[in-house]
Amino acid sequence: MTPAKPTAILLVSCPDRQGIIAALAGFITAHRGNIIALDQYVDHAEETFFARIEWEIDSFAIPYDGIPAAFRPLADQYDIQWSLHRSDRRLRMGLMFSKQPHCLYDVLSRTDSGEWPVDIALAISNHPDHRDLIERRGIPFKLIPVTAADKHETEPAQIEAMKAAGVDFIVLARYMQILSPAFVEAWPMRIINIHHSFLPAFAGAKPYHAAHDRGVKIIGATAHYVTEHLDEGPIIEQDVQRVSHRQGVSDLIRLGRDLEKIVLARAVYWHLQHRILPYKNRTVVFS
Amino acid sequence: MTPAKPTAILLVSCPDRQGIIAALAGFITAHRGNIIALDQYVDHAEETFFARIEWEIDSFAIPYDGIPAAFRPLADQYDIQWSLHRSDRRLRMGLMFSKQPHCLYDVLSRTDSGEWPVDIALAISNHPDHRDLIERRGIPFKLIPVTAADKHETEPAQIEAMKAAGVDFIVLARYMQILSPAFVEAWPMRIINIHHSFLPAFAGAKPYHAAHDRGVKIIGATAHYVTEHLDEGPIIEQDVQRVSHRQGVSDLIRLGRDLEKIVLARAVYWHLQHRILPYKNRTVVFS
Amino acid sequence: MTPAKPTAILLVSCPDRQGIIAALAGFITAHRGNIIALDQYVDHAEETFFARIEWEIDSFAIPYDGIPAAFRPLADQYDIQWSLHRSDRRLRMGLMFSKQPHCLYDVLSRTDSGEWPVDIALAISNHPDHRDLIERRGIPFKLIPVTAADKHETEPAQIEAMKAAGVDFIVLARYMQILSPAFVEAWPMRIINIHHSFLPAFAGAKPYHAAHDRGVKIIGATAHYVTEHLDEGPIIEQDVQRVSHRQGVSDLIRLGRDLEKIVLARAVYWHLQHRILPYKNRTVVFS
Amino acid sequence: MTPAKPTAILLVSCPDRQGIIAALAGFITAHRGNIIALDQYVDHAEETFFARIEWEIDSFAIPYDGIPAAFRPLADQYDIQWSLHRSDRRLRMGLMFSKQPHCLYDVLSRTDSGEWPVDIALAISNHPDHRDLIERRGIPFKLIPVTAADKHETEPAQIEAMKAAGVDFIVLARYMQILSPAFVEAWPMRIINIHHSFLPAFAGAKPYHAAHDRGVKIIGATAHYVTEHLDEGPIIEQDVQRVSHRQGVSDLIRLGRDLEKIVLARAVYWHLQHRILPYKNRTVVFS
Repeated sequence: MTPAKPTAILLVSCPDRQGIIAALAGFITAHRGNIIALDQYVDHAEETFFARIEWEIDSFAIPYDGIPAAFRPLADQYDIQWSLHRSDRRLRMGLMFSKQPHCLYDVLSRTDSGEWPVDIALAISNHPDHRDLIERRGIPFKLIPVTAADKHETEPAQIEAMKAAGVDFIVLARYMQILSPAFVEAWPMRIINIHHSFLPAFAGAKPYHAAHDRGVKIIGATAHYVTEHLDEGPIIEQDVQRVSHRQGVSDLIRLGRDLEKIVLARAVYWHLQHRILPYKNRTVVFS
Repeated sequence: MTPAKPTAILLVSCPDRQGIIAALAGFITAHRGNIIALDQYVDHAEETFFARIEWEIDSFAIPYDGIPAAFRPLADQYDIQWSLHRSDRRLRMGLMFSKQPHCLYDVLSRTDSGEWPVDIALAISNHPDHRDLIERRGIPFKLIPVTAADKHETEPAQIEAMKAAGVDFIVLARYMQILSPAFVEAWPMRIINIHHSFLPAFAGAKPYHAAHDRGVKIIGATAHYVTEHLDEGPIIEQDVQRVSHRQGVSDLIRLGRDLEKIVLARAVYWHLQHRILPYKNRTVVFS
Repeated sequence: MTPAKPTAILLVSCPDRQGIIAALAGFITAHRGNIIALDQYVDHAEETFFARIEWEIDSFAIPYDGIPAAFRPLADQYDIQWSLHRSDRRLRMGLMFSKQPHCLYDVLSRTDSGEWPVDIALAISNHPDHRDLIERRGIPFKLIPVTAADKHETEPAQIEAMKAAGVDFIVLARYMQILSPAFVEAWPMRIINIHHSFLPAFAGAKPYHAAHDRGVKIIGATAHYVTEHLDEGPIIEQDVQRVSHRQGVSDLIRLGRDLEKIVLARAVYWHLQHRILPYKNRTVVFS
Repeated sequence: MTPAKPTAILLVSCPDRQGIIAALAGFITAHRGNIIALDQYVDHAEETFFARIEWEIDSFAIPYDGIPAAFRPLADQYDIQWSLHRSDRRLRMGLMFSKQPHCLYDVLSRTDSGEWPVDIALAISNHPDHRDLIERRGIPFKLIPVTAADKHETEPAQIEAMKAAGVDFIVLARYMQILSPAFVEAWPMRIINIHHSFLPAFAGAKPYHAAHDRGVKIIGATAHYVTEHLDEGPIIEQDVQRVSHRQGVSDLIRLGRDLEKIVLARAVYWHLQHRILPYKNRTVVFS
């Protein structure tokens, strides 16, 4: 799936019109681009076209930095919203977490092992518990305690620190604090949260307790982009685990940890590969 | 799982007390009962004990009809709520359905093939569409049309017909009508409904539309006992199916049909085997 | 997923070459085709390109029957292997089954309900048990008993009958007899079998017994195209079901029936929609 | 699931005989034992009875060390094979691994966080790569390189070191070397391996390559006790992950890592809780 040579990745969405694929593929081919992958989807109800096109940079007739200017006439003609990425640019991740370390451990094991081509530019926590885990790896760590009272004061410090670190996107690895609209707007559709339930069931606090009370036979976890509405952002990925009456709340919490880790990891992986297009509070994921 | 010889099945729940298992197993053994299966569970949060004990009738020293009287002293001592069943008595099912036939087909294929040891005593629908399917099998069919206006008039007819047919329990195979408290109270914890979502998400009407709008990546189905609160009864079984942005509402409906059939079938099977103990709006399922 | 207007569906595979997508999309667009869906995949290890393109017939400048001639120059240029289908032509299914009826019931419930746009042109069984089920629907039924001795005599009768009925493809709904190479060659990659194990584990006879002996914790079912090598053809779809030590062989058989039905149904559905490209004993499934 | 007070756990298997449960439960109750959980299973084909009984130690009339002597008469009467464990004794784990660190990371994250009540008494690897990861935690580490030639010389050193460390059981966290019968016999049914396929499919080396070649649509992982026959020991747990033609071998390897971690973790957790009874190359898992 990961190509050997550097690639350009173009994500597009536009009103569905006849000829759009031919126009896009034609643009790449006209400049001798070798298309590695082309994923396309039309939402016929919304009459909207989505695509992800990936082609090799080195053999392309247009240098990477010149692509936007070359593409603009086509984009204007078809009313295309687009973003361009290159596979050999490592994204900079901002990482936020709280006391529970399982997602943090999991994220670090994937960056340590090289599974994810990403740099953790900054880690912020409201607790000092896992400072060592971060600093041992040479990752900058900021302790920014949060209380209900001082939230309006601490959040600007978080935003500023993340901006100073030049993060491209932020992963909330069980951060457990609600972000303000100002924070969310600074990285729209670029903050990934893991919620420990099968959304929209059990949004909000203590979902495992709520799931146990309701007597569900399956629990879930949901990775989504953060919007200003708590647990209501576009869902990127979900997965589930069968349970029975034998599992008490503490068992659901224990089993859920593995779900949370894996669901978050899949979402981050697809984000890193520029495979996700959010629209209308949903996502197209070309996985 | 299905024993060769006729068995007695005792379902019990009571406050958890030391010695309860020894007392129960001792009672059976003292009368030379051969225990085929004993499933037990203690909800330590609720301090409640649940068990399902199954033993061979033929070699038991007490004739089946004499068991209640023999068991009563023990039941009183431990404050046990209990029910007794025998594996060789075929239950009588009442079947209700509407226009969509997939669950109906599935139920009939399982009774035709002998997978379920059950007799369909009566089938009621508010539409005539599938009358032939029922009558061809020699199953009594009653067409009872329902409109919002005449609901208070038609439901008594349904209840009366089901009672006259002597049904032990009722299966709503996508019946799509809300039952009144009076109906529910006539068969408490003995009416099984299939809801086409992963409850508690998307309760109520048009769950696949709601799931699509929310952009979930997994859809589900839920079999539950019907209570007077719509889609809020004790969950018996759930299962899920992965979907993606590529699936429109009609695809969710199509994929969901297979989920609904199988989830309903598992719930009915466990009910037939007396494996379900409802409590506190949850279920213990000794599957 | 199912488009409202009639579509042409082109399945192609060829050596991967720069410009192939642009050429294909360009061909359709040049004749004013409205592309509904384009799925593409490159096997970089094999340097092979695969695609499925679907566009509306009515607005296409070339009449459907003229497409092959119009497409041939492009096909020759890129060394393309291709097949062309139209969504509004109902395929003719040949159905073969034996004594066990669960897959048969399931297939019939999907054709009865219109879920599958297909006509069952002929049903053949080696047992008379389910004749009524077939004939009641007005489907031609042929009883062709098979014994080890007369296999060489009976198979020509089967092949001839299927050919006379003009079947496009054949579904083995638990037919349980091995087909000879001659039979397979008559419908290459157009005979779908359901095997009741997670292949390649437990190929051959009595897979549930073998699975139980091995103590697996998950059972499976596999739909595949039939080749001359038993249970070794290209896999179209698989699914699994968790089991435990509590399930004996008869439970595995019971649980497996639901798996078999659903896995077979998915494979047939994708075949009907021309979503499967077999290659090198594998399949590309544009589901 | 994990009781608050220290418990004794008795695992038993014996020929199935009338009265066995009553005898077992009666034994505990006669000495004022408070039974927390009793799981029982009869393999009717083998006429063998299995049970796991857990009761509180503190309130039991017999001190823990006296239980074996007190239980022996009953064990002799019913021909019971049994083992006794206490929940407040932390087991000592031996850990073996090779170059691939994902299962190692996962095991360490579970011991670090206290999810598993276990002490890693010794870690052995044939490569020095992850020495730091181990020693940083104060866990003894032994580097014992293995080549085909010197295997007969190195294995005694491994066995000796594990014995000196007093390990109760051994976890092969992707150790990738075959253990000799002598090694296996030193910890029978107490060495847990994770194999990166859905056994019995793809036993042996390079299972993901084999799975890709076969074109399976689902991959799996299997945790099992090690016997002298490679990949043929009793299966403890399995799980699977859906894949498609889009996933190349490297994707299967990446996706498989998460499966391997979780399947191994479940098996170790159940082993730590004394929930597994191996028999006839299968396992009863009272999960």
